[in-house]
Amino acid sequence: MKLATLKDASRDGQLVVVSRDLTLCTPVPQIARTLQAAIDNWADTAPKLQAVSDQLNAGEIKETKAFDQTECMAPLPRAYQWADGSAYINHVELVRKARGAELPDSFWTDPLMYQGGSDDFIGPRDDIALASDEWGVDFEAEIAVITDDVPMSTTPEQAAPHIKLLMLVNDCSLRGLIPGELAKGFGFFQSKPASAFSPVCVTPDELGDAWDGEKLSLPLLSTLNGQAFGKPDAGVDMTFTFPKLVSHICKTRNVGAGAIIGSGTISNKMNGGPGRPISQGGVGYSCIAEIRMIETIEDGAPKTPFMKFGDTIRIEMLDKNGQSIFGSIEQTVVKNV
Amino acid sequence: MKLATLKDASRDGQLVVVSRDLTLCTPVPQIARTLQAAIDNWADTAPKLQAVSDQLNAGEIKETKAFDQTECMAPLPRAYQWADGSAYINHVELVRKARGAELPDSFWTDPLMYQGGSDDFIGPRDDIALASDEWGVDFEAEIAVITDDVPMSTTPEQAAPHIKLLMLVNDCSLRGLIPGELAKGFGFFQSKPASAFSPVCVTPDELGDAWDGEKLSLPLLSTLNGQAFGKPDAGVDMTFTFPKLVSHICKTRNVGAGAIIGSGTISNKMNGGPGRPISQGGVGYSCIAEIRMIETIEDGAPKTPFMKFGDTIRIEMLDKNGQSIFGSIEQTVVKNV
Repeated sequence: MKLATLKDASRDGQLVVVSRDLTLCTPVPQIARTLQAAIDNWADTAPKLQAVSDQLNAGEIKETKAFDQTECMAPLPRAYQWADGSAYINHVELVRKARGAELPDSFWTDPLMYQGGSDDFIGPRDDIALASDEWGVDFEAEIAVITDDVPMSTTPEQAAPHIKLLMLVNDCSLRGLIPGELAKGFGFFQSKPASAFSPVCVTPDELGDAWDGEKLSLPLLSTLNGQAFGKPDAGVDMTFTFPKLVSHICKTRNVGAGAIIGSGTISNKMNGGPGRPISQGGVGYSCIAEIRMIETIEDGAPKTPFMKFGDTIRIEMLDKNGQSIFGSIEQTVVKNV
Repeated sequence: MKLATLKDASRDGQLVVVSRDLTLCTPVPQIARTLQAAIDNWADTAPKLQAVSDQLNAGEIKETKAFDQTECMAPLPRAYQWADGSAYINHVELVRKARGAELPDSFWTDPLMYQGGSDDFIGPRDDIALASDEWGVDFEAEIAVITDDVPMSTTPEQAAPHIKLLMLVNDCSLRGLIPGELAKGFGFFQSKPASAFSPVCVTPDELGDAWDGEKLSLPLLSTLNGQAFGKPDAGVDMTFTFPKLVSHICKTRNVGAGAIIGSGTISNKMNGGPGRPISQGGVGYSCIAEIRMIETIEDGAPKTPFMKFGDTIRIEMLDKNGQSIFGSIEQTVVKNV
């Protein structure tokens, strides 16, 4: 099934079940008013939501309305846990190279994850509003999962069934603020503004063969200012699978229902190296920092600028029939007023 | 007024108003079922809760019950934002020295803060349950504030009125896991297990002259295994005030209602240096790492061990009349089963 949260002037929005083709939706207040309420009690709510979804897709529900992606909040407009991995070590290696930092060997065996802020997620069509566009505004196209309660010490093998929903993320980053912040040693804070999520989140069964219980094997499409920018396959070069990421965050804590765990920027190691832009026949990149790294390697300096006010980013994933799975994230960078 | 959250088998517990002397409480479902619901709509709920508090303290409410601190969850059992500062630079300097790390000059002007995990806070009398006690289990006694919505770019001056509630924290840390985790560059994750909070949170007016709108000037008492361990004054040597910490976290994001911002470990720079244990006439320390640092300086090696299974920590703050303001955090380290 596919679920979304519509803006309704409340903080957590209104949960709706969305048709597979993303054309229709129906509210489900009799089951759960919000997605958090649904995931808090997933064993009970999931079968009921699934029944509504089956009816909706069969054309058996009368109380439907057109599904409008511009009316969406993030599926969880605010959450209690947002932990973002860097599962595609190729990305980590490139970004570190761009910062002049080494990649420790342990990065191939011990997942790199950061604790994100989850109090103010923004909708798929909301602007990226910032006080300045001199901070190196970058997008990061990622996949994220939502779990139910995951007990402390859960192993990767035990973690897999806790993955209940998947969605796309734009984990916006302020590259200019990162070096100073990381130098302080306590990780990101100001350099990670509000993340945006796709219009819908979906249960794993909606992904068919593309989901193997550990990773999602389809290209993730990023379009910067109307130009195809990236189409790496999210199932390729994922060093740490989602169950491994989930297991990592519950080593010393219980993880609460509705936790969002991100993959980190999708990145394929092509041609045995840094890959190529789409314009040169490659799969491109899921953030600007990577292409700037390649430009630095090849030309001595980056030439693709970071995003400025007015720039747009679109992130989407299509199934094998060319149908949008999650709807699209489409955001414009604007000055916060 | 004083507020608490009682265990009731739900995830967010039951909000109660607590009498000033911590003996009585009364539920307020007609105003808000949970503290998050109250802070989500604070302009409306605060006056109503205050009226109940006034009546409760005047003995005018019949529907009361004895307030039992052992029945408390954290005031916010789960939250959308938990950002912890290191406002007492003396602590940062000592802990860094213990790790052999330098203190950059910028640490005196740019707040050091980390993004904490907020999906699984534990109650003031809940055990610190961990799979191992070989990880360097330490307590950190701190003060935290709860804000309403704080818009992006709020200045320190503008931030002060957003501070609505205060409470105590045990920001438990796993010292043995910190160096490896910080070396990866993305901050804490596994090295910060679930934090515990005091039984009650209070509005600033409950603190009288001890709260000046920026910091709380009273000793914070830590008792380790029944022995007085720390009593530093939280109003002394706080390099970054709470309004500055709040302003720091909203530079690039809107902060949602119910955000919890911590002071970091309370630490006084006594005698122009590292201070002295309480047993030697000093004000002691708010975590074990600090005393181990002093021992290393003086004797070449630390001798106070980190906490093991069975060890206990008590954290409390008394007003000028010796009355407990927030109730006490009292936790035992136990093996997670």
